[in-house]
Amino acid sequence: MIESGEMPPGSRLENEIALADQLGLSRPTMRQAIQHLVDKGLLVRKRGVGTQVVHARVRRQVELSSLFDDLDRAHRQPRTEILSFGRQPVPEEVAVAMRLPAGTEVITFDRLRYAQDEPLALMRNYVPVGVADITATALERYGLYQLLRDAGVQLRIADQTISARKAAATEARLLHETRGAPLLTMVRTAYDHANRAVEYGSHVYRASRYSFELTLVAR
Amino acid sequence: MIESGEMPPGSRLENEIALADQLGLSRPTMRQAIQHLVDKGLLVRKRGVGTQVVHARVRRQVELSSLFDDLDRAHRQPRTEILSFGRQPVPEEVAVAMRLPAGTEVITFDRLRYAQDEPLALMRNYVPVGVADITATALERYGLYQLLRDAGVQLRIADQTISARKAAATEARLLHETRGAPLLTMVRTAYDHANRAVEYGSHVYRASRYSFELTLVAR
Repeated sequence: MIESGEMPPGSRLENEIALADQLGLSRPTMRQAIQHLVDKGLLVRKRGVGTQVVHARVRRQVELSSLFDDLDRAHRQPRTEILSFGRQPVPEEVAVAMRLPAGTEVITFDRLRYAQDEPLALMRNYVPVGVADITATALERYGLYQLLRDAGVQLRIADQTISARKAAATEARLLHETRGAPLLTMVRTAYDHANRAVEYGSHVYRASRYSFELTLVAR
Repeated sequence: MIESGEMPPGSRLENEIALADQLGLSRPTMRQAIQHLVDKGLLVRKRGVGTQVVHARVRRQVELSSLFDDLDRAHRQPRTEILSFGRQPVPEEVAVAMRLPAGTEVITFDRLRYAQDEPLALMRNYVPVGVADITATALERYGLYQLLRDAGVQLRIADQTISARKAAATEARLLHETRGAPLLTMVRTAYDHANRAVEYGSHVYRASRYSFELTLVAR
């Protein structure tokens, strides 16, 4: 009910006893279920207010897809704020990851991604000049992968590393988190059908609002 | 050099100038490279000591495989400490994830996994009674997936959710982290070839020492 948006953020839960009766559950079971949702961060208990629904988590299937498109498809109202946009010689570590010659010119940009007016992710990306016609204006309206597709780029494969670290002061401020809050980190290099590295991204997501979903199949 | 173990933890780096000359790099590039490794947590600067190699990160490809086997194959000397082992009716949330009838008996255990004598992960698992003959002694010597295979279980598919949160006091103590340090969380339900849920795991990994690696292919 919470993740589907049937109970929007801010809704209050009736008391446990009424809710247990309504759903035909025993009271200990109801208490356990509520505690589980509190642990998962979907509910919060407030003194004098009771139990409230907090913002739903973005549970995103890990695929070679764009956060923007995924949010859009889930009716999560993505919005992008461009924090910086420019052109520079590729930084050393990005050159290594993308196997680009030193000094290659890349377009680089920092974006703050919102979902339903809540900040969700801070994203830095690098795209070699010439791969696609990327502008700050276009990035405000579309996801990066849409712009790559529009330029005829066929994404084929990506290497991705997921870990976590504490939010630095600036990150915390932009993401409405406290300093030191856990952030999920994702570093990705994406290649096109010609095995050319077309995009390098270093993103951080609010761990309180985001998780990666994976389906693994035995080889 | 660091990740291959050529430079073991504790090794000191020569000063930047000597190292730049030795590797044929410019000094700003060398400084950048060192800063990058410090940021990644592979190097640490200590006053009066210089720059030191810290413990290498476990970069693990996300597959339907066992942490124990992966560490073993990488010569990372896995070791398991059993923190608890027992049998109980399945907790509600696990029953939902595994699609088990309420009251089903499960074997449940908490393990602390070490790699090269450093704590790496805290793992809680649930396996329905009858799936495999699991004992605390066997879990000290083998990974869970080895025991499942020995019992004839063919793992076919798993659903996995990755996120992050702060370490609670007990977790921090067991994992040699400070309280509030970021931990990677992984929740997994694994199914066999008959689509029967055979294992549910809720694991936390030290984000300072662990990352998930993924290769994504366009569909």
